[in-house]
Amino acid sequence: MTKRALISVSNKEGILEFAKELVALDYEILSTGGTKKMLQDNNVPVTAVDEVTKFPEILDGRVKTLNPMIHGGLLGKFDDPSHQAQMNEHGIEPIEIVCVNLYPFVETISKSDVTWDDAIENIDIGGPTMLRSAAKNHQYVTVIVDSNDYAQVVEELKAGGATTLETRKKLAAKVFRHTAAYDSYISNYLTEEDFPESLTMTYELKQTLRYGENPHQKAAFYQKRLSSDFSLAYATQLHGKELSYNNIQDGNAALQIVKEFDKPAAVAVKHMNPCGVGTGVTIEEAFDKAYEADPTSIFGGIIALNREVDVPTAEKLSGIFLEIIIAPSFTEEALEILSKKKNIRLMTINFAQEQQDQFKVVSVEGGLLVQEDDKFGFGEAEIKVVTDREPTEQEWEALKLGWSVVKHVKSNAIVVTDDQMTLGVGAGQMNRVGAAKIALEQAGEKAKGAALASDAFFPMSDTVETAAAAGITAIIQPGGSIKDQDSIDKANEYGIAMVFTGVRHFKH
Amino acid sequence: MTKRALISVSNKEGILEFAKELVALDYEILSTGGTKKMLQDNNVPVTAVDEVTKFPEILDGRVKTLNPMIHGGLLGKFDDPSHQAQMNEHGIEPIEIVCVNLYPFVETISKSDVTWDDAIENIDIGGPTMLRSAAKNHQYVTVIVDSNDYAQVVEELKAGGATTLETRKKLAAKVFRHTAAYDSYISNYLTEEDFPESLTMTYELKQTLRYGENPHQKAAFYQKRLSSDFSLAYATQLHGKELSYNNIQDGNAALQIVKEFDKPAAVAVKHMNPCGVGTGVTIEEAFDKAYEADPTSIFGGIIALNREVDVPTAEKLSGIFLEIIIAPSFTEEALEILSKKKNIRLMTINFAQEQQDQFKVVSVEGGLLVQEDDKFGFGEAEIKVVTDREPTEQEWEALKLGWSVVKHVKSNAIVVTDDQMTLGVGAGQMNRVGAAKIALEQAGEKAKGAALASDAFFPMSDTVETAAAAGITAIIQPGGSIKDQDSIDKANEYGIAMVFTGVRHFKH
Repeated sequence: MTKRALISVSNKEGILEFAKELVALDYEILSTGGTKKMLQDNNVPVTAVDEVTKFPEILDGRVKTLNPMIHGGLLGKFDDPSHQAQMNEHGIEPIEIVCVNLYPFVETISKSDVTWDDAIENIDIGGPTMLRSAAKNHQYVTVIVDSNDYAQVVEELKAGGATTLETRKKLAAKVFRHTAAYDSYISNYLTEEDFPESLTMTYELKQTLRYGENPHQKAAFYQKRLSSDFSLAYATQLHGKELSYNNIQDGNAALQIVKEFDKPAAVAVKHMNPCGVGTGVTIEEAFDKAYEADPTSIFGGIIALNREVDVPTAEKLSGIFLEIIIAPSFTEEALEILSKKKNIRLMTINFAQEQQDQFKVVSVEGGLLVQEDDKFGFGEAEIKVVTDREPTEQEWEALKLGWSVVKHVKSNAIVVTDDQMTLGVGAGQMNRVGAAKIALEQAGEKAKGAALASDAFFPMSDTVETAAAAGITAIIQPGGSIKDQDSIDKANEYGIAMVFTGVRHFKH
Repeated sequence: MTKRALISVSNKEGILEFAKELVALDYEILSTGGTKKMLQDNNVPVTAVDEVTKFPEILDGRVKTLNPMIHGGLLGKFDDPSHQAQMNEHGIEPIEIVCVNLYPFVETISKSDVTWDDAIENIDIGGPTMLRSAAKNHQYVTVIVDSNDYAQVVEELKAGGATTLETRKKLAAKVFRHTAAYDSYISNYLTEEDFPESLTMTYELKQTLRYGENPHQKAAFYQKRLSSDFSLAYATQLHGKELSYNNIQDGNAALQIVKEFDKPAAVAVKHMNPCGVGTGVTIEEAFDKAYEADPTSIFGGIIALNREVDVPTAEKLSGIFLEIIIAPSFTEEALEILSKKKNIRLMTINFAQEQQDQFKVVSVEGGLLVQEDDKFGFGEAEIKVVTDREPTEQEWEALKLGWSVVKHVKSNAIVVTDDQMTLGVGAGQMNRVGAAKIALEQAGEKAKGAALASDAFFPMSDTVETAAAAGITAIIQPGGSIKDQDSIDKANEYGIAMVFTGVRHFKH
């Protein structure tokens, strides 16, 4: 008996060659709609699905293959006598190979002018059903959803007259990955709640990584479709080895910080915390400041810059050991200078794009935490001067810079700044005054006349005391402690200008 | 014309009442298999699906509803003259309501004795197809996958003779969430690769949270099915307000650390870092040590203990301000003592369970990082003494404790310990010697004769120098720097015993 292959594809890449191979292997091709026409136009003999179903295609193609003559052929066990008897009774013939891909739902909803009707019409019903039937019955049926798998199937058919069970099982798993992803996109498109009772997220593999945070941990980097280009998942790598797990986390952290600034800015990150942030009139000056902020920790760090890297900046960057440089672009000469260093990674990223991912996730054992990004900006905060003295113009600049940085530092976080750069960063401490001490010690003499930013309120006045002793003259913090007045009194005592933002910025 | 409702449910909860309401509202019920029998046994008039399809159920029920007479009725636009004409021509009547839930795939694969055939047979084909057809056509069709929605549908039908478009849309979105989750479980079950080309993960809402890391961020906590009970997602809360976002992250961190210890242990966590870890012969002693480790930072912290909380321990715990206490159990009297504090959260968790989640995820902008947990234990490491002097027995205990803790501290991390507890924790620093200084400063006089553990190698000998100056006599670190010999020489110079583990433990 002739074997049968059902082909119905939206993406027609490689399908003609595949169909011809199957015909050469004596398969009868069943098809419908556009695929059928395309094959016939290319002289591939095709049996129409409605000849098999004895039922016409109806409802503008909504119902074509949803028919027992098709699904009996996909779901019957080829070696089960009872199944065979029932199939014979109803004239159902087995279908050995199914090659189907789906209406382009994601591509449709990606269009800026997509209508609701367009989206709904692009929800494929017949296709996923054929794929799922065939995949369930992979003991007998070969199911192909990915054109990359055509060649292997043809090869196995030529070699052994049939695919191996191992291959059929792999292909079936891929089908369920595909239908899971497909329905995940549909559900996200239709769902209006932020936190529905069931959350299904889907990602596409960008690269397997050499390892995770440490060499004994396996890891991979997945990208999210329908996301912004302002992402390392969509960056262009111009030079160097591939990114590591820690590179991606650090690079992502650096991007979030540099994105805070409109004027030229450079950010150096180590272990997901900024070790130096600098701003300036030129990108070269911004980098100088970021370097000067902590010339020790920048070693082996990751730099993000928000302007094109020019020759003077490239020359300075090439003078130190860096893991990655990320920028909107590099001049040709700058690229040439930096490309001489074998181990540095050079990435460009689309800074023009706004970030789009509203929610971020992180695993805990047995579960997942989902939260909105902390996108609260300085302009949105209700800033209130709580001390007798108002900050000077220069202090305001320093406070604003500190506040933009401290929200990206791991909590408890304290940042000491002047109006152009960070002078000290106290990160990840279990108590606040500890974070202040680290930041102030790093700032040293430069703390005199500088500003201090805190990611959360001061539970006691000890941080103001410590800041004053180091010479800090302006402080920005959320406020909200029951002991706020103690801190305010202490600030007034030392002539410090202190402002409250009303907004906390914990980050872990 | 009589309206029709198709009912085919695996989970029959509430279905009889729902069907009776529909009959009272003049609906004709179409059904099949077990649902049909159950309704008929309860005197609900039912039309068999095969009367509608004029085609018998075949292949052990694999093909029942995959028929144009059903799907034409689900997919036809009720107000489209061309659709109506085609339906009339083929004798297809519309189906206004679809109530379907699916074969219990997850429940099946959760069974310890599940066979491959059982799993495959529990992949539902007809059910998801009906749900998806009806959901696509929600402009006209009401589709219900969740028994919790029966009441609302009945209410709307009674009130207005039809459901609202808004309700139908919400129900359709829920269907695609359900089918996405369903196929996600199937694909994960069938997939053998660690990092397939497409990764679809699904979670169930445990609770929406008041807010995320900060009050201006929305957040929720989702739980993972097929996971371990050793998880806050599966913990039992005995007392107190609901957990916050930061509580969950901190509690999870505390659990990972306390799980390292076989002997009685207590861990205090702040901002995801341990501020005090203590061990002892009793859990009371372990808590005493964890408290003594850092009596300042423990304020407002989270405590995990790996033994039942008894009265003496409860009395001490109740003496300080704590956010959460997590333990395998509390004695009745201990619970009584602690429950007097209104704001404390008391949780029990199943410590007998091993962790099961092999991979953890974290978002970056535009993507997702996936990695294996760092479960590398002291017993698996190839420990090598690299100095002239071997550690004493007591030093070995301290080194082991430090190593078990430092892998859970944010990098760069240095922990100073004796054989029972942490003495200083240096967390989240951008350079290593900075982390050492924090840990040693906290340990103070107690650093004399204590051990120091580092999560990564020493790039230079300065950390050994700093440690020696503080009185440290034993060091544990991965080794692997090109300047290892400098550190070894320096350790020998000071008579410090140093061991290499060969394994790094970055954590961010």
